[in-house]
Amino acid sequence: MDTPISNSALQIIPLGGLGEIGLNMMAYQHGDDIIIADCGLMFPEPEMLGIDYVIPDIAWLRERSDQVRAICLTHGHEDHIGALPFVLQELNVPVYGTALTLGFVNEKLKEYKLDGVVELITVKPRDTVELGCFRVEFLRVAHSVVDGCALAITSPEGVVIHTGDFKIDQTPVDGQLTDLARLSAYGDQGVLALLSDSTNVEREGYTISEKYVGEAFADIFPKCQGRIIVAAFSSNIHRVQQVADVAIACGRKVLLNGRSMIANVRIARELGYLNIPDDMLLDVRELPYLPPEQVCMVTTGSQGEPMSALTRIALDDHKQIKLERGDTVILSSRFIPGNERTISELINHLYRRGAEVFHEKVSEVHVSGHASQEELKLMMNVVRPRFFLPVHGEYRHLVKHIQLAQKVGIPEERCILAVNGDVVSFYADTAAITEKVESGRVFVDGKGVGDVGSVVLKDRKHLSEDGMVVVIIGLNQSSGVLIHGPDIVSRGFVFEDESQEYLETARGIVVDALDELNDEMRRDSEAVKTAVRQALRRFFKKTIERRPVILPVIMEM
Amino acid sequence: MDTPISNSALQIIPLGGLGEIGLNMMAYQHGDDIIIADCGLMFPEPEMLGIDYVIPDIAWLRERSDQVRAICLTHGHEDHIGALPFVLQELNVPVYGTALTLGFVNEKLKEYKLDGVVELITVKPRDTVELGCFRVEFLRVAHSVVDGCALAITSPEGVVIHTGDFKIDQTPVDGQLTDLARLSAYGDQGVLALLSDSTNVEREGYTISEKYVGEAFADIFPKCQGRIIVAAFSSNIHRVQQVADVAIACGRKVLLNGRSMIANVRIARELGYLNIPDDMLLDVRELPYLPPEQVCMVTTGSQGEPMSALTRIALDDHKQIKLERGDTVILSSRFIPGNERTISELINHLYRRGAEVFHEKVSEVHVSGHASQEELKLMMNVVRPRFFLPVHGEYRHLVKHIQLAQKVGIPEERCILAVNGDVVSFYADTAAITEKVESGRVFVDGKGVGDVGSVVLKDRKHLSEDGMVVVIIGLNQSSGVLIHGPDIVSRGFVFEDESQEYLETARGIVVDALDELNDEMRRDSEAVKTAVRQALRRFFKKTIERRPVILPVIMEM
Repeated sequence: MDTPISNSALQIIPLGGLGEIGLNMMAYQHGDDIIIADCGLMFPEPEMLGIDYVIPDIAWLRERSDQVRAICLTHGHEDHIGALPFVLQELNVPVYGTALTLGFVNEKLKEYKLDGVVELITVKPRDTVELGCFRVEFLRVAHSVVDGCALAITSPEGVVIHTGDFKIDQTPVDGQLTDLARLSAYGDQGVLALLSDSTNVEREGYTISEKYVGEAFADIFPKCQGRIIVAAFSSNIHRVQQVADVAIACGRKVLLNGRSMIANVRIARELGYLNIPDDMLLDVRELPYLPPEQVCMVTTGSQGEPMSALTRIALDDHKQIKLERGDTVILSSRFIPGNERTISELINHLYRRGAEVFHEKVSEVHVSGHASQEELKLMMNVVRPRFFLPVHGEYRHLVKHIQLAQKVGIPEERCILAVNGDVVSFYADTAAITEKVESGRVFVDGKGVGDVGSVVLKDRKHLSEDGMVVVIIGLNQSSGVLIHGPDIVSRGFVFEDESQEYLETARGIVVDALDELNDEMRRDSEAVKTAVRQALRRFFKKTIERRPVILPVIMEM
Repeated sequence: MDTPISNSALQIIPLGGLGEIGLNMMAYQHGDDIIIADCGLMFPEPEMLGIDYVIPDIAWLRERSDQVRAICLTHGHEDHIGALPFVLQELNVPVYGTALTLGFVNEKLKEYKLDGVVELITVKPRDTVELGCFRVEFLRVAHSVVDGCALAITSPEGVVIHTGDFKIDQTPVDGQLTDLARLSAYGDQGVLALLSDSTNVEREGYTISEKYVGEAFADIFPKCQGRIIVAAFSSNIHRVQQVADVAIACGRKVLLNGRSMIANVRIARELGYLNIPDDMLLDVRELPYLPPEQVCMVTTGSQGEPMSALTRIALDDHKQIKLERGDTVILSSRFIPGNERTISELINHLYRRGAEVFHEKVSEVHVSGHASQEELKLMMNVVRPRFFLPVHGEYRHLVKHIQLAQKVGIPEERCILAVNGDVVSFYADTAAITEKVESGRVFVDGKGVGDVGSVVLKDRKHLSEDGMVVVIIGLNQSSGVLIHGPDIVSRGFVFEDESQEYLETARGIVVDALDELNDEMRRDSEAVKTAVRQALRRFFKKTIERRPVILPVIMEM
């Protein structure tokens, strides 16, 4: 039964982003053709100690690399394009996207010296491309990055609408509305499946328009006496446009700060997505010569990143910029879950410097880029799909999105709760999860991709809690007699300079443990290690209730 | 000038809780008399790796222990009583508080075998106690724990109102209103200073009444078919009462779960603060014999604590309780900042088990226990203090609370922004920060109090990011010739089983580094360590861009 389906069915295979926020990557397969929608990364969760990025496991694609026709991008956020430099090293396929999306991609490829190597093909909204047996039309959607698109994917089994991230903003800054007209037209013709963004499914009503943030700026800026510093995500070009517009109207020039802010603004201006006159942009060297009320800085660092300019300013540790009483800082971004405490500390430090601070918890200086419940329902009603598959969300979001779908009349049996690795097969008006393929998360740590796994992470966690104690013991190879040490060194356990006496006692415990072993056991280095580990573990637990990693090193001499 | 003030002035010295959430402890000094308001702990922040609790540094009190007359407690939350077991080992003073507060304290003292040793003196609201030159009246305030009080402290310099944590709930569950009458009476007589709770100063309007949570339960419970599990803070006795009331009304019996939940409910029932008939309480052994629709479990674990019953239930790893489709879980508590991701994962797992989940982000199943802006203004207008000192808050909360005070007409020069360690002196109608005393945070890790400091924490952080590499080198003591090793062992760095070859190359790097040293340097173990560390650091950075802790151990043989 498997064979007929896999040959003539449409298969949708989420390789990332279903059951998690980030890491978005979806494969569409029909016959010998595969196309991919998005290729995102995830920033590491707190328990992923020392990890830089997380990317999707593409084992399934690797085995079928000759069938992959293209990667189609919905928009230029990291969680949709960030894994490209890694994936494109293994898959040699063209990448389709709108101009700004590919502008961001190209910047990223440069970092990995892949620019010029990869074929980037620019499309405009309502452009259609043929990719094997698939036809893909790009449809404008509003989102918190400019130039976002949904994908209308026509397959031999029918049309799939893949929304990407979206909101239905009635007053987007660039006037580019979510293309409800084309979505309706597809709905009229009949849509096999809708794959829709679940990020904000827990929010009632409508997501506020991006323009309201501009209005909040217009309310705050004229009251500011000193400098204004606005922190925002560098990809949010409309936000930067609104800051610049209001700043210029208030007689301020704009200083850009942060590597990605400078890069993204450059790209957006070159491509015509951002309009700031040259003479309104400040160079940091001009700063000392301008009075505070003529300066508006737009910077990265809204999440309190330790090395960012904003954090350095807040800690009064920035070369050019010193905050003064009367200055205003606006955090025009979301408090990303997991960063709340860091952002909170950032705000405290800004107040210590005498600044006034606005942020999303106290003022409307940020809005979401994702559709809330009413918009999600509208999308379903416009597209009227036969099957509904929630995407982009943690498990609970997917469940809630299906509950919402049922409210607009999509029956439960036509809602598919798939997670990463599930193969959803569409064939002759039926849909089902038919198999499970390899999928998952690959950790990037420095230059290593995939070499840090759960054992290493577990050790890092253990090390982080009570540190490490190394015991070096030199034993005579033939007699097992102690001829060197035990030496004890520790890190992150107790402060050695102040705990000489305690570690001396621990040495005695090791000597006693060795004494208790008979000659034969002392010649067995594993037995010695176990005995030392047990004795010290018991001693540390009893005396100070700590459980460091204990690493006995036996030197046979 | 210092001497006259410290003898005849009233001095208020925050030892914790000003510039941070938690760790609340305030000293009041006049002449030779010191009284202390509250003695709280703080749960460790994420960067305090492996730390169990944080308690205030009481160096200043230690030097004046013979002058300390008493500790007065406002209420029984950990951030107001949690440091008592540690502090009472050093200060032998009586502790005053209401019955439930002391009930919780006594339970805590038992754990540390201090019960019976410490003098606990129970007071009722409107009781007054004389403590040296101070007279302290306990005044009822509503809060998220029962039996909370503000302190009206009459000193020779005037009256200070110390609110503790409070809200002005017009419909508290027990009908015990915040005692605005007595607060007004003090206001009429003239109050020197108001020290008021800043926790919720960023929230506009009024905090919703606790009774609304009961109404939310009354709305949700009758619709539930399966079991109901409510997770709440075990100290929130009113919340437990409301769960029990609605559950019983819906024909369900109550199962208590979690060590602190069982203990606190026992204490509250013994003292008459909680009314659940004996025959309405379930034993876990009865569970298999009851249909799901007759069970309501009240449990701890609302923050997704890894070992809690709720987490085990969510992971389908609980002996007695297996969640089924149709069961309902209500997280009736705050998402404490820093725990959002863990709670989010908990919710995902509950949905994976088929349960429906309610929490504060989607439903009114939790309200705060702290006053919002309008209540804070009301408190100021009732008390009409000469000086205002915001307490219980991070720096930004203190700043915002002072901004709020100015809105109700307390001039800026009579608002005092003090942080931990500041000595605020009141003398002849003036107030000023006159000196700074030792204060700060002491880390408790296992049985160790104060022995883990910043060096150890820095090492733990470093270890947590890229792990550790230990290099053991045996050198001839007199010639400096390599006679053993180098051996390399690592933890949390790369997975050794898969990286034999890589670590073998690293060994070669160490041998090369040793070869480059001349005989004299090889006899200097510090020089050898430095050379090994440098060589490996460079090698690891270049090859895999990681920076593990490198620990060379030189054995002179």
